[in-house]
Amino acid sequence: MNFSSDNVTGAHPAIVAALAEAAGAGAMPAYGADPLTEGLGARFAEIFEHEVAVFPVATGTAANALALSALVPPWGGILAGHEAHVEADECGAVEALSGARIMTVHAADGKLTPAALAARLAPIRKGDQHQVQPAAISITQATECGTVYTPAEVAALGAFARENELRLHMDGARFANALVGLGCTPAEITWKAGVDVLSFGATKNGALAAEAVIFFEPTLAENFLFRRKRAGHLVSKMRFLSAQLAAYLDGDLWRRNAAHANRMATDLALGLIDLPGVDLDHPVDANEVFVRLPAAIADALFRAGFHFYPWGAPPLDPATEAGLYRLVTAFDTAPAAVAAFIAAATRAAKEIA
Amino acid sequence: MNFSSDNVTGAHPAIVAALAEAAGAGAMPAYGADPLTEGLGARFAEIFEHEVAVFPVATGTAANALALSALVPPWGGILAGHEAHVEADECGAVEALSGARIMTVHAADGKLTPAALAARLAPIRKGDQHQVQPAAISITQATECGTVYTPAEVAALGAFARENELRLHMDGARFANALVGLGCTPAEITWKAGVDVLSFGATKNGALAAEAVIFFEPTLAENFLFRRKRAGHLVSKMRFLSAQLAAYLDGDLWRRNAAHANRMATDLALGLIDLPGVDLDHPVDANEVFVRLPAAIADALFRAGFHFYPWGAPPLDPATEAGLYRLVTAFDTAPAAVAAFIAAATRAAKEIA
Amino acid sequence: MNFSSDNVTGAHPAIVAALAEAAGAGAMPAYGADPLTEGLGARFAEIFEHEVAVFPVATGTAANALALSALVPPWGGILAGHEAHVEADECGAVEALSGARIMTVHAADGKLTPAALAARLAPIRKGDQHQVQPAAISITQATECGTVYTPAEVAALGAFARENELRLHMDGARFANALVGLGCTPAEITWKAGVDVLSFGATKNGALAAEAVIFFEPTLAENFLFRRKRAGHLVSKMRFLSAQLAAYLDGDLWRRNAAHANRMATDLALGLIDLPGVDLDHPVDANEVFVRLPAAIADALFRAGFHFYPWGAPPLDPATEAGLYRLVTAFDTAPAAVAAFIAAATRAAKEIA
Amino acid sequence: MNFSSDNVTGAHPAIVAALAEAAGAGAMPAYGADPLTEGLGARFAEIFEHEVAVFPVATGTAANALALSALVPPWGGILAGHEAHVEADECGAVEALSGARIMTVHAADGKLTPAALAARLAPIRKGDQHQVQPAAISITQATECGTVYTPAEVAALGAFARENELRLHMDGARFANALVGLGCTPAEITWKAGVDVLSFGATKNGALAAEAVIFFEPTLAENFLFRRKRAGHLVSKMRFLSAQLAAYLDGDLWRRNAAHANRMATDLALGLIDLPGVDLDHPVDANEVFVRLPAAIADALFRAGFHFYPWGAPPLDPATEAGLYRLVTAFDTAPAAVAAFIAAATRAAKEIA
Repeated sequence: MNFSSDNVTGAHPAIVAALAEAAGAGAMPAYGADPLTEGLGARFAEIFEHEVAVFPVATGTAANALALSALVPPWGGILAGHEAHVEADECGAVEALSGARIMTVHAADGKLTPAALAARLAPIRKGDQHQVQPAAISITQATECGTVYTPAEVAALGAFARENELRLHMDGARFANALVGLGCTPAEITWKAGVDVLSFGATKNGALAAEAVIFFEPTLAENFLFRRKRAGHLVSKMRFLSAQLAAYLDGDLWRRNAAHANRMATDLALGLIDLPGVDLDHPVDANEVFVRLPAAIADALFRAGFHFYPWGAPPLDPATEAGLYRLVTAFDTAPAAVAAFIAAATRAAKEIA
Repeated sequence: MNFSSDNVTGAHPAIVAALAEAAGAGAMPAYGADPLTEGLGARFAEIFEHEVAVFPVATGTAANALALSALVPPWGGILAGHEAHVEADECGAVEALSGARIMTVHAADGKLTPAALAARLAPIRKGDQHQVQPAAISITQATECGTVYTPAEVAALGAFARENELRLHMDGARFANALVGLGCTPAEITWKAGVDVLSFGATKNGALAAEAVIFFEPTLAENFLFRRKRAGHLVSKMRFLSAQLAAYLDGDLWRRNAAHANRMATDLALGLIDLPGVDLDHPVDANEVFVRLPAAIADALFRAGFHFYPWGAPPLDPATEAGLYRLVTAFDTAPAAVAAFIAAATRAAKEIA
Repeated sequence: MNFSSDNVTGAHPAIVAALAEAAGAGAMPAYGADPLTEGLGARFAEIFEHEVAVFPVATGTAANALALSALVPPWGGILAGHEAHVEADECGAVEALSGARIMTVHAADGKLTPAALAARLAPIRKGDQHQVQPAAISITQATECGTVYTPAEVAALGAFARENELRLHMDGARFANALVGLGCTPAEITWKAGVDVLSFGATKNGALAAEAVIFFEPTLAENFLFRRKRAGHLVSKMRFLSAQLAAYLDGDLWRRNAAHANRMATDLALGLIDLPGVDLDHPVDANEVFVRLPAAIADALFRAGFHFYPWGAPPLDPATEAGLYRLVTAFDTAPAAVAAFIAAATRAAKEIA
Repeated sequence: MNFSSDNVTGAHPAIVAALAEAAGAGAMPAYGADPLTEGLGARFAEIFEHEVAVFPVATGTAANALALSALVPPWGGILAGHEAHVEADECGAVEALSGARIMTVHAADGKLTPAALAARLAPIRKGDQHQVQPAAISITQATECGTVYTPAEVAALGAFARENELRLHMDGARFANALVGLGCTPAEITWKAGVDVLSFGATKNGALAAEAVIFFEPTLAENFLFRRKRAGHLVSKMRFLSAQLAAYLDGDLWRRNAAHANRMATDLALGLIDLPGVDLDHPVDANEVFVRLPAAIADALFRAGFHFYPWGAPPLDPATEAGLYRLVTAFDTAPAAVAAFIAAATRAAKEIA
């Protein structure tokens, strides 16, 4: 009964089975010249309805840092939300692999807007050798607040990017959750809305360790092989990344997994929202719930063995002020666990009252 | 019947089984706080008979580059053989992640010697701000020539390193093959001989993608968590790297796999060496055979469907001069494949004569 | 009549004379082994009443970036004001030469406070591999707002730094102006208040191009020679940087120059402040005046040939709202130029009324 | 009587005078917008008979590292002679500022040849993600051996570069000495021979600290302003670099200084060459003499107060084998000093005999 993150999960059996099959398939060329990897391009092109260049890597941080390194010069700036994963949780990897600077912008509900970006850009002198030159926008979909950008919202950012000669990157560590939450096509939320490159995540949604950097404009990917290798991110037995990605896409596993996780999150939110003193900080658009819980309820849940994280700054007076907590559901979250969580919270709420 | 590399192989069933078990084991903390990862330290300490700090990563290039980055300052030099993998096959990853320079030294049979190192160091002015300052030696065990350093040879380098205030790194992408070839203990060939940090490889010898950076002096590892994450090499579901490593060590699988691969290489060499015009460039100490083959034999083998690489510069006159080829065996090389290779070569040799 | 910056000035004749003397002094060892450079340590030690390690460089950006690179690891964070020169005007040089990230903190009047720093640090998880680890504070003295930190204010930051295991850097591009404004000793505002390393500027205050990185804890400077050379900042004929610095210190030229510049700034401010619609944004503690001027006055001044910069975001309605302007005085600012500026502004103010 | 280097010299009075004039010229825009800097482009274009983009910097290491960073990607290789200054004497600055790797090639008499380069390139697999990709050639003119490339030799390298899609950089720390030694035009030895960018040195030949990066294909310079600033190499009072460069070119001072230095070197060589046991290691094409001296002669010269460096590896038996020494002359070398050196050597030679 662990709601602390979607990366505390194991992996989906279908993906493990694909790995086992690849493991026993005998000799294959290394470094991506194997048929599993070579098949990914067509598979993703079909899904995204667009020519793509696809590069598997083992971690989301690598996907983000390498993708962005292909979009910006070392003296460039990357506009990102103040809670963006690339800023808050990657120990400077984007800067290390790109040389560029992350420029944070306040992002309500985790979402950047053209207005907020314009305000951030206003004082920066374009072309002035003294200043880091904004060169890309990085958005997270679903966001770090559990919300999602609509196609229209992304398209507005895409238009803003083009007007300002910026590239647009999407950190899709939870891309499937966003997609299912929106009910749109992969194309609508990416290249049709102006996204240049996508970090396509599978790890959090059922894979063991597999992400893909997907370029919608292949010329941007020209040197990506060198970037990936030079950072130590070229996996020799690439078949094992590609097998995960292929199985993830097969039979819509990725969307089915995400749909389940999102439903669990919605159920959690719905089961908690009417309890006295309980409140949501953000809409629940994907598989994360940011909920304010009175200390007595939170403590009761921890005592009952549920795992989840307090989030952000603690309340000044926990006795009277609800604290913020993050609950994350996943492809394997049991409905019973959700029910148990709600029941325990409800009991605790009654005891307080 | 592929002898082109040990990374064209799949993975050993026992390692796949361990992955499957870890995949179904339910929630575990991410980023290395899981019990599988936490158990690795004790397991490796037992094997190496010494306190260690162990950090799993997914690629050998990451292991080498990150390990070396912990040993040298950005203005440091890393002494390595002219055919060393860190120099020839990692696209500058060591330099990228450490800032340091690789300084090549001619390495006969792939092996550095104190004399060769001393000659390389002689013209460098220690402490002179104008010059990159040698700070570490990196040796490969087994070497890129398929040979192995004896404990005495490593110990001589270890002593040289200490005398010259250099650190000693061992690239053990084929560590098990070397160990089995030597018949010594892991301790004898590493810390007892002066090795500070080891890139311990499992991928080429039966794993899917799993290596470990092993520090014998834990203080050197002080900041390694940050180095690994900042380069994008922290795998979130670390259990999946650790499960591979644990299964690799269990029941001596690593040594059994390597022993098989080495035996196959020896068999290959023995079966080829007496053919007319055939010669070995280096002793066969591990799982690689560097063999000179007359063009007619090599061509016959390629036509018969065997895969293996020509190596180094091509002969000036292929009609009269044998070309150099590399044959690599692995944990899953079938004795029948070796026999078939030898038979085909023998047939071709007869046809020439 | 140029008030746009103190780097639009030429150089003080005494400094030029020192250069000429050094130019004609015959052969001297290069790279800092000359007597002029070797004498700097004792000279600065006397001035700062403390053992120091002194390294001349040609630019302030080099001084800041190299000084900070000696204080923080590549995964470290540098806390600096949101308008700090290292953040706003050095094109990412600090990040490029250190690998670290600049973490901005809102700085009213250009000054960091322990409270603002504590709030910035609060959400950061110390020792967590996912996060850039705050490692240093960088303050500017005099600040980018023309204010100065008092010894007590610096000491409070120094104490905060020690409590939080941070190093303290001072960007002293206008150090002399600050010192003269404060009337304290160099020691009181630096090491006695907890400063670890100072970028000591001379260029803006009468030199041609000469700054010094001054370490108060020499062990921090251990590798500085290599850092400086590796970034291309080792000047071969070092005598020419050192001659500037020596002449700058001789006969208190640095304080006399700064005193003059500060006086000119004060005179400017006093002459403007009583005009209708005119206001100061910050106290005038050194040689910069940040003044709000009605558009009609500003325009009249520009038409009259005065040079100075509009500053920050332009007013939404320039017709009714005064705009912000920066006026900088220098060692060679003529009192007549100040009087002329005030007279022109006064005339313009009368015309409006 | 110092022959240890041309950077132990002071500066030429005409250049000092130009600095003094610039120092007293009142306000000028900073950062290169001053008339002195803006005039450099036309001045150099005239001298090189070609459109150029010119960027002054204060050190030769900065010029080389920044110039090369504009020519190669971070995964690129820079082919340079094994004694090249960028390799042997810049503490890794080229790698630090470009990310690229220096690939050394044996250079007899300090000169690269197409044949030597071709041999170095042969084993490298173009386009292979595992390997650093050769991207530029860097030659030194005059070389580190005191020789010069003829226009035909440079043109051969230029042609080789184009055939192999490499850029060609010339480290011209002693460009004037080479030019005078050759008696050709600046154009003939640079862009006409295929040079893309030149590090144009003035410091060693009479300036205080002034070099210029000169691009013959301005598109290569597109981002150079950012590269220079991001490395801390933008000098604020740029007039002081530009004034040195302008004075250096005025009235052919650069060629006159170099001609004098070269003549002094030739005189030295001619005066020494007939002494018994004395020999030259390289032709004397510019202002450096690499001479073998019996120990007794060298010791006598040192005792007589002459300064010069032993060079390379010391002789195994100094009693019987002459040691190698470097003598460098400069714009201000007195003919009397040369005569005194020769006289002292001659006396010592007689005493031995």
